[in-house]
Amino acid sequence: MQLKVKPLDIQENQDIVFINFNDAMKERIDPGEKVVIKKTDYLFSSSAVLTNNFVEEGFIGLSIEKTKRLQSKENEIVDVSPDSNIEIAHISKKKLEGKILTKEEIVKFVDGIITGNIDSVLISSFLTSTQILGTSTKEIEHLTRAMAETGTMIKFDKKPIMDVHSIGGVPGNKTAVLTIPIVASAGLTIPKTSSRAITSPAGTADVVEVISPVDFTPDRLKDIVNSTGGCLAWSGVLNLSPADDKIIEVERKLLIDPEPIILASVLSKKYAMGADFLLIDIPMGDGAKVTTWESARKLASNFTELGSALGMHVEVAITYGGQPIGNAVGPALEMREALLALQGKQSGSLTEKAIGLAGILLELGKKAEVGKGKELAREILESGKALEKFKEIIKAQGGNPNIKPEDIPLGKYKANILSEDSGYITKVDNSLIVKTAKILGTPFDKGAGLILNYKVGDRVEKDNVIVELYAESEERLISAKKFLDYNKVFQTEGMILKRFPGLKVI
Amino acid sequence: MQLKVKPLDIQENQDIVFINFNDAMKERIDPGEKVVIKKTDYLFSSSAVLTNNFVEEGFIGLSIEKTKRLQSKENEIVDVSPDSNIEIAHISKKKLEGKILTKEEIVKFVDGIITGNIDSVLISSFLTSTQILGTSTKEIEHLTRAMAETGTMIKFDKKPIMDVHSIGGVPGNKTAVLTIPIVASAGLTIPKTSSRAITSPAGTADVVEVISPVDFTPDRLKDIVNSTGGCLAWSGVLNLSPADDKIIEVERKLLIDPEPIILASVLSKKYAMGADFLLIDIPMGDGAKVTTWESARKLASNFTELGSALGMHVEVAITYGGQPIGNAVGPALEMREALLALQGKQSGSLTEKAIGLAGILLELGKKAEVGKGKELAREILESGKALEKFKEIIKAQGGNPNIKPEDIPLGKYKANILSEDSGYITKVDNSLIVKTAKILGTPFDKGAGLILNYKVGDRVEKDNVIVELYAESEERLISAKKFLDYNKVFQTEGMILKRFPGLKVI
Repeated sequence: MQLKVKPLDIQENQDIVFINFNDAMKERIDPGEKVVIKKTDYLFSSSAVLTNNFVEEGFIGLSIEKTKRLQSKENEIVDVSPDSNIEIAHISKKKLEGKILTKEEIVKFVDGIITGNIDSVLISSFLTSTQILGTSTKEIEHLTRAMAETGTMIKFDKKPIMDVHSIGGVPGNKTAVLTIPIVASAGLTIPKTSSRAITSPAGTADVVEVISPVDFTPDRLKDIVNSTGGCLAWSGVLNLSPADDKIIEVERKLLIDPEPIILASVLSKKYAMGADFLLIDIPMGDGAKVTTWESARKLASNFTELGSALGMHVEVAITYGGQPIGNAVGPALEMREALLALQGKQSGSLTEKAIGLAGILLELGKKAEVGKGKELAREILESGKALEKFKEIIKAQGGNPNIKPEDIPLGKYKANILSEDSGYITKVDNSLIVKTAKILGTPFDKGAGLILNYKVGDRVEKDNVIVELYAESEERLISAKKFLDYNKVFQTEGMILKRFPGLKVI
Repeated sequence: MQLKVKPLDIQENQDIVFINFNDAMKERIDPGEKVVIKKTDYLFSSSAVLTNNFVEEGFIGLSIEKTKRLQSKENEIVDVSPDSNIEIAHISKKKLEGKILTKEEIVKFVDGIITGNIDSVLISSFLTSTQILGTSTKEIEHLTRAMAETGTMIKFDKKPIMDVHSIGGVPGNKTAVLTIPIVASAGLTIPKTSSRAITSPAGTADVVEVISPVDFTPDRLKDIVNSTGGCLAWSGVLNLSPADDKIIEVERKLLIDPEPIILASVLSKKYAMGADFLLIDIPMGDGAKVTTWESARKLASNFTELGSALGMHVEVAITYGGQPIGNAVGPALEMREALLALQGKQSGSLTEKAIGLAGILLELGKKAEVGKGKELAREILESGKALEKFKEIIKAQGGNPNIKPEDIPLGKYKANILSEDSGYITKVDNSLIVKTAKILGTPFDKGAGLILNYKVGDRVEKDNVIVELYAESEERLISAKKFLDYNKVFQTEGMILKRFPGLKVI
């Protein structure tokens, strides 16, 4: 409600404001209830005293100090409303009781998160209920829209807008560095934004940042994309889906990551970028986020269903995530590997995955017939057109388009880890690789990381260099070596994993 | 683990400490993980950097500033452990996943709450999961013990220890003021502690405080109880079950009150007081906390079951809670009514409920045969022995034992509310009475409150004084009158509740 300020000559320490009884009745404000008083940019929350004498109907009584704090003066109109914590507590309670939230309630909840007014215990309860009880499709749709619409929404000139996103969980996944230029050089618009590493050794933004700026204002980003057809940018500064950051902060404390929130988090950012066709990459396998076909398929159908509710064509590729993509892990090492692949000097799982994903995007964007996309993607890569487009994008982003793989600086402390035995590699442990990379200093030390010289199925001989470690400090290199004394990244058939000494007979 | 301090000549702003790689491996501390560094009263949490060079095994490297902050010096031993937030996050996550928590996990969780180290989002998640998923009997038992044992535990001289507790929800419930002296004058020990009003117009502690101090140290309380057999004290300063306060703080924000937590909260305090026999009063009826027989019975059996697990005999009385107990609501008014009842000058629901509960306690304490307790309680009350014991307790507590009901000061602003119609009262609305009393200023304004001149079943004539209002400020009196213009506390048979004007035919 709108009330006029009446400055009162009082000094108080109880954080109170005075509201006329009739106004309070209309707005259902009880004595002692918290209300938010707002004037453009200034706001605070105080406890209401109801009165008939101190202030007339239509007025709110504030101490002179509070009037100043609001940068206000007598008779100026301010907005007074019940503190959203109470309203939002009712919403989180409704969720907890297993009831379906309405669009209005979800919008209110997300607004509360954005304005920073609400107590994080309410976000915690909401996330806990969501994890235990799930959400309806409509609820996720409302949540996704609300998360997108409370942040920046960007429109690009040339339709359709393509996009690609990996849910992550597999180290060394620098595919976007190849996929984006392939798709853009076919004439499609693909404004790729990505996060920095959250739990991984390097996000796409960390990798690209090795040779180019990645943080742009929305206007700058539009220029880059309108001129080149693509970008490889960091989503952070764009303020896409800003509620997501605060939700993630609480999720991390709770060690949970509810699937409906993953869906809303990913799709809200793509919706904000105006994506028409979105390809979701779900790496599946031991040590990835998704480990079984069943859960991969379920997640896939949830993504496509939500996408369709948002008017977005979402297609899903379930990819092999049981070991790292390519051989390099860590920002500089991955950038170098991706550059070599763009130059056609490296083949293997990175190239195969990148052209596989690009192929699907080319088919979705009607640049290739169904079934012919991968072929076209390979052509574009092998012809050098993808490399040219990549250089164009990097130049537009203000980076160095002519950098050579060997120019990219790597950590100056290096060590080789030798195989302790001979045999065939049966497993490469994603999570131990992530830990090793982090001990080495990734994602902050750009030159840190590791190169896996062998992958699953490869034959290794005793004393072959199985892993190369890079670090920017000797300390970290030694720590990582020590870590690998205790932990085996590789499993080899024929290798004795552990010996238990027998009990001595006395 | 115990490590020796090694002050390092560094300046840092990242809040880091240095731990030797070997120590970190032993304690499973990962790089970047938060650890708590503790020296007697000083502690802080920092992020771990693992190293082989900066500090030897057995040492922790701290900046000189951090060394000072810890009031420590070189080679002094400090305690280093992984930050309990992570451990506790794993516990709250386990709860969320529907798994049963062990005793050790629950103790760790409660310890975390007590030491104030843990983030309230974890308490929020724990409470939300508990509300949705429930708890096992063993879990509540562990929780209750942990809550009790992390606070003050008191032992009294004379066994058995009796106690009584109402779960609340019905206004005007000053029964303990009668019950305690009746039971104590029969020679039983009954150290009654109670809270101040949480959501009600007056808790027992607020009522007794009108004529006597109610806050005592544990030693002072023991003296009072050992000399008189009873007390009417506030539980607050005793530090009984201190985790409860922090849990309640989060519960209020979430607007939830999970039953397992109610059980643990009540019984932990009684367990801490060494109760052998505990009588739980569950007021049931419209507007009370418990509204149906089914839920009352379920709660009752959960109380007795948990009591028995704690080695306590818990008996439950389901009482009528559909309207206020007695006629007075508000601290001073209730004290006056209770005094009149002790003097035998007032009869009715207050006296009947008080001797009913006292009778059960006399039977449990073997002072009366089964079925004869209420009779004995009535005798003790009518003989004036209860009044004598009450005076004895008030004197021991440092209050005025000779105060007369008419000496108790009431709010000086008074108003009468008249019945708008004639008929029989069919309903008295508990929650509107609570709201009216709070608008009048209870529980903080001791003299504020209301007297209900009629109860359910009474015949009322138009313009009879149906309610008397008392307030300590004119403002509050006017507010309450206005509130009662909008809201009807009484429903009368024959009264037209609302008229809807018909649609005009055009």
